Amino acid sequence: MKANRIYNFNPGPAALPLAVLEEIQQDFLNFGGSGMSVIEISHRSRHFDDVINDAVARTKRLLKLDDNFHVLFLQGGASMQFAMIPMNFLAQNTFADYVDTGTWSSKAIREAEIQGKSINVVASSADKNYAYIPRDIKFNQGAVYVHLTSNNTIKGTGWAQMPDTDGVPIICDMSSDIMSKPIEAQKFGLIYAGAQKNIGPAGVCLAVIRQDLLDLVPDSLPTMLRYDTYAAKNSLYNTPPCFAIYTLDLVLKWLEDTVGGLDKMAAINQKKAALLYDFMDAGDFYRATAEPGSRSVMNITFRLPDEDLEQQFVQQALQNGLGGLKGHRSVGGCRASLYNAVSLEAVEALVDFMKTFEQKNG
Amino acid sequence: MKANRIYNFNPGPAALPLAVLEEIQQDFLNFGGSGMSVIEISHRSRHFDDVINDAVARTKRLLKLDDNFHVLFLQGGASMQFAMIPMNFLAQNTFADYVDTGTWSSKAIREAEIQGKSINVVASSADKNYAYIPRDIKFNQGAVYVHLTSNNTIKGTGWAQMPDTDGVPIICDMSSDIMSKPIEAQKFGLIYAGAQKNIGPAGVCLAVIRQDLLDLVPDSLPTMLRYDTYAAKNSLYNTPPCFAIYTLDLVLKWLEDTVGGLDKMAAINQKKAALLYDFMDAGDFYRATAEPGSRSVMNITFRLPDEDLEQQFVQQALQNGLGGLKGHRSVGGCRASLYNAVSLEAVEALVDFMKTFEQKNG
Repeated sequence: MKANRIYNFNPGPAALPLAVLEEIQQDFLNFGGSGMSVIEISHRSRHFDDVINDAVARTKRLLKLDDNFHVLFLQGGASMQFAMIPMNFLAQNTFADYVDTGTWSSKAIREAEIQGKSINVVASSADKNYAYIPRDIKFNQGAVYVHLTSNNTIKGTGWAQMPDTDGVPIICDMSSDIMSKPIEAQKFGLIYAGAQKNIGPAGVCLAVIRQDLLDLVPDSLPTMLRYDTYAAKNSLYNTPPCFAIYTLDLVLKWLEDTVGGLDKMAAINQKKAALLYDFMDAGDFYRATAEPGSRSVMNITFRLPDEDLEQQFVQQALQNGLGGLKGHRSVGGCRASLYNAVSLEAVEALVDFMKTFEQKNG
Repeated sequence: MKANRIYNFNPGPAALPLAVLEEIQQDFLNFGGSGMSVIEISHRSRHFDDVINDAVARTKRLLKLDDNFHVLFLQGGASMQFAMIPMNFLAQNTFADYVDTGTWSSKAIREAEIQGKSINVVASSADKNYAYIPRDIKFNQGAVYVHLTSNNTIKGTGWAQMPDTDGVPIICDMSSDIMSKPIEAQKFGLIYAGAQKNIGPAGVCLAVIRQDLLDLVPDSLPTMLRYDTYAAKNSLYNTPPCFAIYTLDLVLKWLEDTVGGLDKMAAINQKKAALLYDFMDAGDFYRATAEPGSRSVMNITFRLPDEDLEQQFVQQALQNGLGGLKGHRSVGGCRASLYNAVSLEAVEALVDFMKTFEQKNG
């Protein structure tokens, strides 16, 4: 690896394409001939207009969004969206359905409950420590929306496809798999994603919202907590997180121009995940924690025979240039996050290390 | 200037110290020996702990804060604080006083009103298009807080010192003069500042809050809209805007170690502002818009004899390597923002250009 860089399997903030990092570094003192750093230019300048408009256009092309959708850049991460969603869309005497597939789903539910909103948890995989994605869910007709978490970063599960909600718009937290594969845009009312896993640095939350949902926003909400503020002002009501949007735009450019779009990205991601799952399934030293059919393509959670070995594994991996393999502190174990910017070469290096570690300790 | 950089008089995002930009650039592919970019490291890592703890410690030292104060890093800019302040501190049957000194004060007032909170606008300079700071204000005893904007970026005015509120804590938007001079910390309940003018890039809002205000936060608020969430978790409840906090920390390091603290910074800032005001006052071609005694040290707003000349002035200045001199779109005219990172040399170059322009057009 260049410049003594490691293979980075962090769950987020996470690996970014080296070409993107090098472009940022190269241009850092003088952006686009402005004579200023990208972090010194005005958000009202032609230079920044070009950046944000390019990021919007690339998002629309990559996700194949029609003109019913607005692309927004928000702050506060997905966690702020957990609060804003019920605040914007659930008036008195209306309700929404939520599916609980782990930590982040549970937090989204909790933030609606704090506000006293009417929600139904229509399915949950809590009974098996969230090791699977619920199937054959009965959604309630008349719900304003159905809330889902498409990929569960901590539990290592993901929806292989979105469920049929019989026309009720899906609001989906895609923080950990946005832009990792094509989506069926027409199923969604709102998609949101903290950028720091697949599409950029921490500090910006990408949202894609359908026009009709904006009509639900009540007058009583403060300006910065209304989705329609961001839609009306191209996310420039006040100073946006310029550097994070700039970096996100470069990542989307890499996705379109270097990778070749989401179909190609999905094929690469499937290959990376299969390499790791197939290796683990072939032996009994490493055990993937998610049930087959519910396994995440992005966050591969696994256990070793005991916790001592897990600790040694994470430490020795880092000594061998493989970082970020510790499981989330709430669940323990190990986790390899294989986001878009993690190369096939990195996964091959990980599997090689895993083989060696097993030979020594198995 | 190095690397074809210009003198940057932008109102925000604004100039940053070149040494800070160069350090970011230098370390961008491998931060602190981590083998990862600073935008790829985990916010739960030792590396980022060092960054955020250093930023907190430097803020406390620079502002001379005792242990009653918490230093927080928020998102959504000062505009989000306009909403959060009444939400967190104004329960039913309580009220606050606000002083209206221009655009940003007015927006803070509006966000309290949208929520139906009880507030009094106890003074306003709207009668003279906000060209002065009100004096001899009668504040209401029993107010939970008094809200002020210490420096008015758009109108070019600033409070020379904070008013006497007879013990009612001041909540102050210091977005455009934070860290430009020492403050009397004991007067404040909450200080907040979007970083993108004096202390960093866009994407992080620094807040300093006194412990007793945290006790007012009601249980009904969502997690991300509560100041106590950030105080309890050292701003790490969820992923914070890591890059913005890292850059802010480097700017504070520059302030402490290179400039030598806020007394020295204030002396430099006074000298810069005096250079420009004195030059304008000595002639009648350029006219400072703020009344003497109310003039901002940070944002110097001025007019030329007519709008055509103003347009030529801004254009020709840029051709001469002096950028960001256009007044805010809501007021017109010209403005030179002389934040901490704008050097005395830059202001001298500006005054030289102004002399030449006057000779040609006066």
